[in-house]
Amino acid sequence: MFFSSTLLENAVNEFARLPGIGKKTALRLVLHLIKQDESMVTQFSDTIAHMRKEIKFCSRCHNIADSNLCNICSNTMRKQDLICVVENIRDVIAIESTQQFNGLYHVLGGVISPLDGIGPDQLNIESLVQRVQKENILEIIFALNPNIQGDTTIYYIGRKLKDNPVKITTIARGISFGGELEFADEMTLAKSISNRIPVENYISSISNG
Amino acid sequence: MFFSSTLLENAVNEFARLPGIGKKTALRLVLHLIKQDESMVTQFSDTIAHMRKEIKFCSRCHNIADSNLCNICSNTMRKQDLICVVENIRDVIAIESTQQFNGLYHVLGGVISPLDGIGPDQLNIESLVQRVQKENILEIIFALNPNIQGDTTIYYIGRKLKDNPVKITTIARGISFGGELEFADEMTLAKSISNRIPVENYISSISNG
Repeated sequence: MFFSSTLLENAVNEFARLPGIGKKTALRLVLHLIKQDESMVTQFSDTIAHMRKEIKFCSRCHNIADSNLCNICSNTMRKQDLICVVENIRDVIAIESTQQFNGLYHVLGGVISPLDGIGPDQLNIESLVQRVQKENILEIIFALNPNIQGDTTIYYIGRKLKDNPVKITTIARGISFGGELEFADEMTLAKSISNRIPVENYISSISNG
Repeated sequence: MFFSSTLLENAVNEFARLPGIGKKTALRLVLHLIKQDESMVTQFSDTIAHMRKEIKFCSRCHNIADSNLCNICSNTMRKQDLICVVENIRDVIAIESTQQFNGLYHVLGGVISPLDGIGPDQLNIESLVQRVQKENILEIIFALNPNIQGDTTIYYIGRKLKDNPVKITTIARGISFGGELEFADEMTLAKSISNRIPVENYISSISNG
């Protein structure tokens, strides 16, 4: 791609370094910014730089935070004895969007995946064990993606916590709402049969949800 | 979308204001930046802000430039008597990528489009007329998109220049390379017949191109 301006080229290259942004998209974004007021572009760049400089990770749950504790951990209205264990902050956002969970979180920062060279020591597992021991946690809900890595992580952490009087659960696997039985994979269908629930529970979960 | 951090939320909102970037993509970009070194993010934001502050438009062709004249206009190796008229800077980049054009450009900044409220006065037409009169231009090539607005613009500028001894041409319309006749629209097919070229010219254009 040819550029008549080095300033333009540099800006396009910076955008093109972001994931999923190619040169053509980067050019479109930069040309958009050129059309905007200088103050708007300054606000854009200042917000990004300020965010990177000031952002912190919650010392308790490893979620992204503005200060030492994130908004969720510092909210005393939430159940302090219930922890939902997730892989990353996107999962926190997804679960919060359902408005169905009122406990705290623990962000592992990934899942155990020997093939990717990720072992337990690189994840926030030790801090989870300490929270369970110190914070009088009654229940841990694993909300990890349903694959081998997720299941391995659940198994590993479950063993670490086996001497603690904490209830350990995982979110239900099954056929999605709107999904069709004939197109479900065998694993999901099999698990949805073995984990079947009484109809009265199902009906009450629908009427509450 | 729920955010546990105001810094994160502000940064996501800034990205989501860019065209074609939704909230989920913005979040992905911001989480990527959080993972990068602070110096890399500072470089990103500084480059964008610096670009917007320092970027100029070429006083001759209205292309984007670092100084008073763009790289193309200040390149004395290029033909100074040949101007390619384009709608915007993306078209300059597209034509430069072919490495087939060695003249100068004139960026109109749009095309005449009464429905969008764009008249000749909002475009860089007067400066084109002045260039033709002062710079001893021999030929103008219109490289505008093939639609009514483009054709209207060619017609309008052509009339403005009719008293000047300048050759006015437009890029060829026809079936694209790799295109199939049966799927071409009628207009393109009709124009490709009426603007047919001698086979010897066609063969020499292929062997040169």
